[in-house]
Amino acid sequence: MKRIAVDAMGGDHAPQAVVEGVNQALAAFPDIEIQLYGDEAKIKQYLTATERVSIVHTTEKINSDDEPVKAIRRKKEASMVLATKAVKDGQADAVLSAGNTGALLAAGVFVVGRIKNIDRPGLMSTLPTMDGKGFDMMDLGANAENIAHHLYQYGILGSFYAEHVRGVKQPRVGLLNNGTEDTKGTPVHQEAYKLLAEDKSINFIGNVEARELLNSVADVVVTDGFTGNAVLKTIEGTAKSIVGQLTGSIKNGGLRAKLGGLLVKPTLKKALGAMDYKTAGGAVLLGLKAPVIKAHGSSDAQSIFYTIKQTRSILEAGIVEKSVAKFSVVEESHD
Amino acid sequence: MKRIAVDAMGGDHAPQAVVEGVNQALAAFPDIEIQLYGDEAKIKQYLTATERVSIVHTTEKINSDDEPVKAIRRKKEASMVLATKAVKDGQADAVLSAGNTGALLAAGVFVVGRIKNIDRPGLMSTLPTMDGKGFDMMDLGANAENIAHHLYQYGILGSFYAEHVRGVKQPRVGLLNNGTEDTKGTPVHQEAYKLLAEDKSINFIGNVEARELLNSVADVVVTDGFTGNAVLKTIEGTAKSIVGQLTGSIKNGGLRAKLGGLLVKPTLKKALGAMDYKTAGGAVLLGLKAPVIKAHGSSDAQSIFYTIKQTRSILEAGIVEKSVAKFSVVEESHD
Repeated sequence: MKRIAVDAMGGDHAPQAVVEGVNQALAAFPDIEIQLYGDEAKIKQYLTATERVSIVHTTEKINSDDEPVKAIRRKKEASMVLATKAVKDGQADAVLSAGNTGALLAAGVFVVGRIKNIDRPGLMSTLPTMDGKGFDMMDLGANAENIAHHLYQYGILGSFYAEHVRGVKQPRVGLLNNGTEDTKGTPVHQEAYKLLAEDKSINFIGNVEARELLNSVADVVVTDGFTGNAVLKTIEGTAKSIVGQLTGSIKNGGLRAKLGGLLVKPTLKKALGAMDYKTAGGAVLLGLKAPVIKAHGSSDAQSIFYTIKQTRSILEAGIVEKSVAKFSVVEESHD
Repeated sequence: MKRIAVDAMGGDHAPQAVVEGVNQALAAFPDIEIQLYGDEAKIKQYLTATERVSIVHTTEKINSDDEPVKAIRRKKEASMVLATKAVKDGQADAVLSAGNTGALLAAGVFVVGRIKNIDRPGLMSTLPTMDGKGFDMMDLGANAENIAHHLYQYGILGSFYAEHVRGVKQPRVGLLNNGTEDTKGTPVHQEAYKLLAEDKSINFIGNVEARELLNSVADVVVTDGFTGNAVLKTIEGTAKSIVGQLTGSIKNGGLRAKLGGLLVKPTLKKALGAMDYKTAGGAVLLGLKAPVIKAHGSSDAQSIFYTIKQTRSILEAGIVEKSVAKFSVVEESHD
């Protein structure tokens, strides 16, 4: 049985979307057990599942504008903090929240804790590509700065995820850089390039450029948290702006445009489906002693369902155990 | 008379596209004079203009895959190098090339030279926004690393450009960061934030996020060269991928999709026109003693025309003189 602690109070549509997603997931996956942390009365309004589910009542919660580290330290009874503690105390195997990202990162690092020899856990998401295969990018902003050794570790962690959770054989690992030659970028990138190239356990394909990300140039893309955050937000913003611009022009166009719009709508919808983030699940904080999963703040029930599905796959793949094993070997070879 | 030195041999479609763009520009602007650097026989094949134009013959040229600094030093007779030298020697007021970006940056810094007290010239482009107004972003990759003081100087240089070349009153200057609070980012960003906020000569509006760039969140966006390069390429790649995905789905769709596509085509074309890079001109290396302009490598005659138009506006606005004046004051106050 995979035991997942869920912060019922996190996210824009909590607790309704969270609890409804939990209902769906419990019905679909007989091998999971859900612990819901939050306001019992509110949770019960939406909870229809009766088996393999429990509620841990608390009224305290972390808000989206709370200062992350302070919130974690002061709001000791917050739903997110209690859910994270359940993992630390061995009562749950993974934790999921759609709440304050910074607070969840802090809770992950300070409460769940890092895997030995992993310096800086990083945030990873599977982002969509045009061919529908997707790629895993990290760090997406858990850290503002990273040294080369962090980037190297992200290559390993991302590779584990792509291979064991997404089923990509020998995942192609690329380093995001401002050109493809190995001399490109800052000294951090040049050193990270060397470290990644030296490790024969991963399939490092060299530098990749941001222009090619959506064209499946790599299965795993490694970058520092600042750049990763900027690139992720640029992809989201650009996609939203362009799709909005095009659909807006049809809606506000003349009769001809509107008629054409009706005709192309199903085709465009299908084409844009390849870029849908929902089914890929949430962002994963990799490098911790247990999976800590961040669902999108705007998650609806369906997104929560897919994020629970993803959490289940992560537990099934055992990537935490694989990471522990890999990095304990790294330590020995450094001794 | 504004004298512009043009590298006739740079770019994917040189010299034809370059020379044809020059023909158009000479016809449109009676106050410019063009010096064409390159293979005289080849240039003459396309040159129809007869007044205010001269050819400086050379057969050497820098290729797109040449190592920039080496190329500049060894190929002393290359069209790009000679065009840049003409500016240094006072025979031309600005230089334009669609060739090797790195080589042009190197030629700009080593041949034309930096304005006193400007530490690191940066590459700036006007990027499209959905409302058609556009924003100026720098550094787009002239540098792989920048300190806070560079970012501060980019705020001033970008502000000059937006105000005097694009005619934006009190341009809103934003610092690209991973959140809007002033504590966000690395120590470099935090210090840059302070420097920008302290200078009352610019209209600093604080941190801006990459998600909002295409929504006209700022008129000038300041960032380091590595992030700027990644964000620029992400915008380009995402836009290209999505538009390709949508148009491809219509083309490969059934009769219904194709008919709808025909009907919406003019509307979509108009909507995408707001995102057209062509009319905005090329990238400008700001912080040098004369304007050094990089036209897109894939420039056609129309792009070259607009880039010459932009070069003329830059000379007319006198932003180099304004920068020299501004930064000489900075020096005095530091003494």
